[in-house]
Amino acid sequence: MAYDLYYWPGLPGRGEYVRLVLEAAGAPYRDVARLEGQGCGIEAMFALMRDGHHGAVPLAPPFLVDGATLVSQAAIVAAYIGERHALAPEDEAGRQFARSIAATTADFVAEAHDTHHPVGTTLYYEDQKPEALRRAVEFREQRMPKFLGWYENLLRLNSAGWLAGGRMSYADLGLFQTIEGLRYAFPRRLQAIAGDTPAVMDLAARIAAHPALADYLGSDRRLAFNEDGIFRRYLELDAD
Amino acid sequence: MAYDLYYWPGLPGRGEYVRLVLEAAGAPYRDVARLEGQGCGIEAMFALMRDGHHGAVPLAPPFLVDGATLVSQAAIVAAYIGERHALAPEDEAGRQFARSIAATTADFVAEAHDTHHPVGTTLYYEDQKPEALRRAVEFREQRMPKFLGWYENLLRLNSAGWLAGGRMSYADLGLFQTIEGLRYAFPRRLQAIAGDTPAVMDLAARIAAHPALADYLGSDRRLAFNEDGIFRRYLELDAD
Repeated sequence: MAYDLYYWPGLPGRGEYVRLVLEAAGAPYRDVARLEGQGCGIEAMFALMRDGHHGAVPLAPPFLVDGATLVSQAAIVAAYIGERHALAPEDEAGRQFARSIAATTADFVAEAHDTHHPVGTTLYYEDQKPEALRRAVEFREQRMPKFLGWYENLLRLNSAGWLAGGRMSYADLGLFQTIEGLRYAFPRRLQAIAGDTPAVMDLAARIAAHPALADYLGSDRRLAFNEDGIFRRYLELDAD
Repeated sequence: MAYDLYYWPGLPGRGEYVRLVLEAAGAPYRDVARLEGQGCGIEAMFALMRDGHHGAVPLAPPFLVDGATLVSQAAIVAAYIGERHALAPEDEAGRQFARSIAATTADFVAEAHDTHHPVGTTLYYEDQKPEALRRAVEFREQRMPKFLGWYENLLRLNSAGWLAGGRMSYADLGLFQTIEGLRYAFPRRLQAIAGDTPAVMDLAARIAAHPALADYLGSDRRLAFNEDGIFRRYLELDAD
């Protein structure tokens, strides 16, 4: 039976961290909020957020329905799919650490989001611009090198060339998507520091060219970054 | 063999979300950074963050070492322990949803933290006070009711009286700790809205009185909230 993925249509956002795993796995799925017709569309997503599924009510998308199971939170959903489709380490220690990595990436993504929404998600960017300018400095100068340096260290420690275990996992796909997002939102900063993390940049390039994702990344299922999403290109927030 | 927990000494923080599960489970563990002697203390924590453990390097505490496994991120570690010690739902769907809840609670906790650090963690609170005052308004008025209302709905849907499944889980312990933190950091606001979420407040009271935790909560192992942690009592950030 196909998985049902629910996420805001029109932006990659946190949904893309799930979608990439489904696509790399070649798993059948419906991207329900982007479909039309009975039981589909954004109304179907809102209905599940209101009524739940067998007692499980998600606070926010993305979430996945698989039979009687509902899983939410991008890092948890990515692990759920990855572990069922050989996109996770094979051994238990590696699986646990891959989950840890994905949760850490979710933190990094939240911090990238908060560069344009440091005061709150219920206000517009334009209403928190001075605060955003301050927070973006810290993100660019402190947080980006810290997180990227951590991934770099993990890749150097693992001769298999992945963040955890002996094969590509959802943790690697999450790093790829985050690098793509940073390339969109902070192109000057990423270019300035990319030379410090060559293994990270190489991983992103290998995943961009990976056979399992080639069709998808060139398809219209792959949504472009835009200013409704997590990674936004506001030139004033970027710098070398 | 005992678990080894690593977290900053001197504050409950995110470490407490792990410690509560270990204590409720009655699992043997060492709180390594709070111990003295060979291989203990904060230096031992820093050594693992630098050198890792079988290739797994945590970005930040809390993290847990269990034999060859290193798990980091409070929500992931809490799930790891809870699922091994009957502090998780028994069925797979419930287990997945409990993981989703714990990850959502981690988001809520990060937002509580960001009320006093909206610009960045590398700056002092005193250097971001105007931004903090703005962010705290949104947190109190929008985010607290949203998250607490969500937990309330889950408790009303589950006749067993827990957030997920038929028994107390690490997800419930995480909500308890978060309510305790809000009671410390936002006492006026929590009192003003507690009447809207009676099932949440009842859950917190039941856990505070739970036999598995009674000894611990009265012991000196239980660290008090303070202004070095996530939940800080800055009177200017609170209001009815």
